[in-house]
Amino acid sequence: MNIAIIGSGNIATYFATKLFEGGHTIVQIISPTLENAQALASRFHCAYSSNTNELSDQAEMCILAVKDDIIKTILLQTDFKNKFLIHTAGSVTLNDLSGASPNLGCMWCMYSINKNHLPERTNIPLIINAANNDTLEKIKTLADCISSSVYSLSDEQKLTAHLAAVFANNFANHMFTIGQDILQQEQIPFDLLIPLIENTVEKLTYTSPDKLQTGPAIRNDKGTMAKHIELLKSHDDYRNIYTLLTESIQKKHA
Amino acid sequence: MNIAIIGSGNIATYFATKLFEGGHTIVQIISPTLENAQALASRFHCAYSSNTNELSDQAEMCILAVKDDIIKTILLQTDFKNKFLIHTAGSVTLNDLSGASPNLGCMWCMYSINKNHLPERTNIPLIINAANNDTLEKIKTLADCISSSVYSLSDEQKLTAHLAAVFANNFANHMFTIGQDILQQEQIPFDLLIPLIENTVEKLTYTSPDKLQTGPAIRNDKGTMAKHIELLKSHDDYRNIYTLLTESIQKKHA
Repeated sequence: MNIAIIGSGNIATYFATKLFEGGHTIVQIISPTLENAQALASRFHCAYSSNTNELSDQAEMCILAVKDDIIKTILLQTDFKNKFLIHTAGSVTLNDLSGASPNLGCMWCMYSINKNHLPERTNIPLIINAANNDTLEKIKTLADCISSSVYSLSDEQKLTAHLAAVFANNFANHMFTIGQDILQQEQIPFDLLIPLIENTVEKLTYTSPDKLQTGPAIRNDKGTMAKHIELLKSHDDYRNIYTLLTESIQKKHA
Repeated sequence: MNIAIIGSGNIATYFATKLFEGGHTIVQIISPTLENAQALASRFHCAYSSNTNELSDQAEMCILAVKDDIIKTILLQTDFKNKFLIHTAGSVTLNDLSGASPNLGCMWCMYSINKNHLPERTNIPLIINAANNDTLEKIKTLADCISSSVYSLSDEQKLTAHLAAVFANNFANHMFTIGQDILQQEQIPFDLLIPLIENTVEKLTYTSPDKLQTGPAIRNDKGTMAKHIELLKSHDDYRNIYTLLTESIQKKHA
């Protein structure tokens, strides 16, 4: 397929590289900063531009891999009506972009990609969906070049997966951050917690997380919880989180 | 050193095995269930009993590796006054056990040990403390047989580390569980989230968690957050957690 990539960041680089390796033709890279467009285009010996109005007629498919907040600007200033248009954002639905092209779809990579160290693992989950079957079939062909773990989900399911990732990745990471903050008060290094965290995550590959719950909340160890609350007496925010999550664990495992 | 182990569970098995391999003599295993005491004792060719009143005179040091809630019962019915007494609980302080022995200490392993698959890694953090220097020196000798990562902390610091572990391990795991719950509503497998979680945890070894925060909260993506809140409209508990953690992330990274 002849593909134009709009964007030159992490996802643009990852998808373009995988699709090129998979035998597809990258016909053009478009990025607001011309040097970035040129640098990425040089890997695929293709055209480049800083303006989506210069979108190549050769491109059957456009992959929109830009920050969420500039998607709408690009759609307003560019005519994609005769192209297959794929966006790459987890939290954007097809409905949000309806009207941009009748052949609209999405490939969302559930991973934090770094363009300077593209991941070696081939099973990074790739969520796809599309406004019609023809577009979905085209996207499947591309997705198979990128990942061995492709999930076709509805918009509603995709948003649900995005929400789940906020809990399991963003909020879990904030729990690591709070752990770090608490340790810092006593000049204890965060490294102390890493083996424990690694061990729990290793077990996720063969045990579901609800089976792995441990700690004072699930065993209703009131003495320990009272000591913890006392330690947090001058930190209202963390104390409120402690109380709410303790209640949630006890309710879940009642 | 001549050591008696009280308990036959995960920590009892782990510590006894490591100390035996390190050249110390396990003189006795005491466990309420005689078969368990016997089974563990057979590995070290030592005496065993189901009753702490039969504690061997040969034991210079006793390691108390039982569930938190039976520690006090054992202390009431047993005279440890002439022994070095080491407890192994994260949430129990030396102060809690004061009076049991003048030579009181603690070795707390910050890890989830499974006696049927003892960990191969040698850097599992071991927190030690003691009521006096003589006891601390004895404990250090033992601790070095168990781990290459020994931290001598005060009771206050140890409780702080325990609290940090509740956030970074127990509460983070609950975030994984909520992620799983949310996915299950749409029949999406939890496996989808594992590469993302693994990737974040891999980065913890070289980046601190506050540098790894991503997601709608930190970029104040109000549109996405509104969609998430809408998805959680019939789940008050998870919506409250979403709101509280979003505020906490925004405050931390303001």
